[in-house]
Amino acid sequence: MYKTTELQQIIDSEFQKLYFPKNPAELYQPIEYILSIGGKRIRPLFTVLAANLFSEDVQNAINPAIGLEIFHNFTLLHDDIMDKADIRRNKPTVHKKWNENVAILSGDAMMIYSYEFFMNLPTEIQISIFKTFNKTAIEVCEGQQFDMNFENKMEVSEQEYIKMIELKTSVLIAACFKIGAICGGANEKDAENMYEFGKNLGLAFQLRDDYLDCFGNTAEFGKQIGGDIVANKKTYLLIKALNISDSQTKAKIIAEINKKDFDRTEKVNTILEIYQQLNIPQITEKKIEEYYNLAFSYFDKISVPTERKTPIIEFVNLLKNRKS
Amino acid sequence: MYKTTELQQIIDSEFQKLYFPKNPAELYQPIEYILSIGGKRIRPLFTVLAANLFSEDVQNAINPAIGLEIFHNFTLLHDDIMDKADIRRNKPTVHKKWNENVAILSGDAMMIYSYEFFMNLPTEIQISIFKTFNKTAIEVCEGQQFDMNFENKMEVSEQEYIKMIELKTSVLIAACFKIGAICGGANEKDAENMYEFGKNLGLAFQLRDDYLDCFGNTAEFGKQIGGDIVANKKTYLLIKALNISDSQTKAKIIAEINKKDFDRTEKVNTILEIYQQLNIPQITEKKIEEYYNLAFSYFDKISVPTERKTPIIEFVNLLKNRKS
Repeated sequence: MYKTTELQQIIDSEFQKLYFPKNPAELYQPIEYILSIGGKRIRPLFTVLAANLFSEDVQNAINPAIGLEIFHNFTLLHDDIMDKADIRRNKPTVHKKWNENVAILSGDAMMIYSYEFFMNLPTEIQISIFKTFNKTAIEVCEGQQFDMNFENKMEVSEQEYIKMIELKTSVLIAACFKIGAICGGANEKDAENMYEFGKNLGLAFQLRDDYLDCFGNTAEFGKQIGGDIVANKKTYLLIKALNISDSQTKAKIIAEINKKDFDRTEKVNTILEIYQQLNIPQITEKKIEEYYNLAFSYFDKISVPTERKTPIIEFVNLLKNRKS
Repeated sequence: MYKTTELQQIIDSEFQKLYFPKNPAELYQPIEYILSIGGKRIRPLFTVLAANLFSEDVQNAINPAIGLEIFHNFTLLHDDIMDKADIRRNKPTVHKKWNENVAILSGDAMMIYSYEFFMNLPTEIQISIFKTFNKTAIEVCEGQQFDMNFENKMEVSEQEYIKMIELKTSVLIAACFKIGAICGGANEKDAENMYEFGKNLGLAFQLRDDYLDCFGNTAEFGKQIGGDIVANKKTYLLIKALNISDSQTKAKIIAEINKKDFDRTEKVNTILEIYQQLNIPQITEKKIEEYYNLAFSYFDKISVPTERKTPIIEFVNLLKNRKS
């Protein structure tokens, strides 16, 4: 078995080897740019970790791992246009550095490019991997659409929110685990359990993101607390608060959301105080824990010797306890 | 063998049967909308015509035919955002009817959806079709980028222009013929010849579009003559005119291009007059003829009995002589 750091190195070196055509430059430079500014490459790592769970040979999983990461970066590129985001990973977003047309088209090319990495797989796994990837890709678009819809919708239920982040975020992580597993030779049942493992992990990760944005330690979090509050983002915390608060508190939250002119610190503190009063941090932490437990209930079912599971468990625990 | 009208009916009925999910509505309604406002469905027809050239059974070609048309419509949807076009097929474009974000995302979903129609093919042809489609899809993006680059570039060579329309338009038509042929059981050589046939036909079609926009008969053309001239579009005619004119005439053309305030009729007439002086209509017609001849030199090589070729020849001749 590989050490996780070894798999990380394999992934990194594969990304360094990636080659895109030189022309047209406006199409390919943005793709090289967004891939070069990094990110944690967690999805390809999940993919090869999953393959390594079932097989010593992770070779089959490498191309799909790259394809999944390229697809993920395509979604970031197009989401940033839609969200009018100027900064991604501390760098200007593609539509800021170039322009919107370049961002739309290089995103399109990037998405198509990701499919290149799902060819040349062994025949017996080709179609099931391809189908998993394509289904997931469509679901991610659905998730982004629901997310955009929520911007103009005050009443979002917890269930609707969970469904949205499942589509927007979790199914791709689920697909990484499932596709990696299939590449490693997992049987159908194990592959499905890996999918459910990833899906519930993804939900826990997203809720953790929501939580850290409000209750992270500023020094460790690496950016200012409360970005989601300032942007009136419908996070788990806000939705839960709106759903469980009495009419008076709810009115107070809505008043904060509707304020056009406000002092950042004041707004953040007002909302955080309400969250504290409503026990939102504890409720969120409990929910995160539930999803971790659910995730591991699926992982426990995987029919491989326990010692093979250690690298994934350790890596997931690392992510679970992250502060940023 | 099928009659072309029968194949057209098969295609139409398949499109009528297409089903998209209901939710999120903002994602799927635009897809249904752009597919419902029609277009001539020439690409899927080429695909099944190509299959029928080699086989009585066109069943294998139907899904790829639909996928190719959905992909084509995705490119129109995103191109319309980039070109800021308000009207497509006499209807508001998706980004006008909804908004840009909806158009970006439903385009993305549409592109991904097109891949759904390239699964479940017989194993022996799956990969070659998939590879042809994906290579083509990337090339179409490259073509669109070159086209956008030309907007800000005064000196475009004929060769650069031909390369651009080859990528933006022709390779997709080429892919339709090739993929259809593969579905019909064509050997590699015939499939390649079908590709070259389609590629050169595509070039002829595009040059014909350029020509009709200037020298079509208004009544038959169905829209106002000179739209490309008004928009300063770098067509074959404009590029050729810039490339073969003396410095005085060239200056006159450039002056027209640079005019901010102008009378439509005056501008169109001035440019048309220059085109006439430079023999641009004749030069363009000759070039179109050359591409048709080149196309048919490949078609002639296809190793099927001549009578099987009749439907394609007749249909292409119909397109060749179109006035709009």
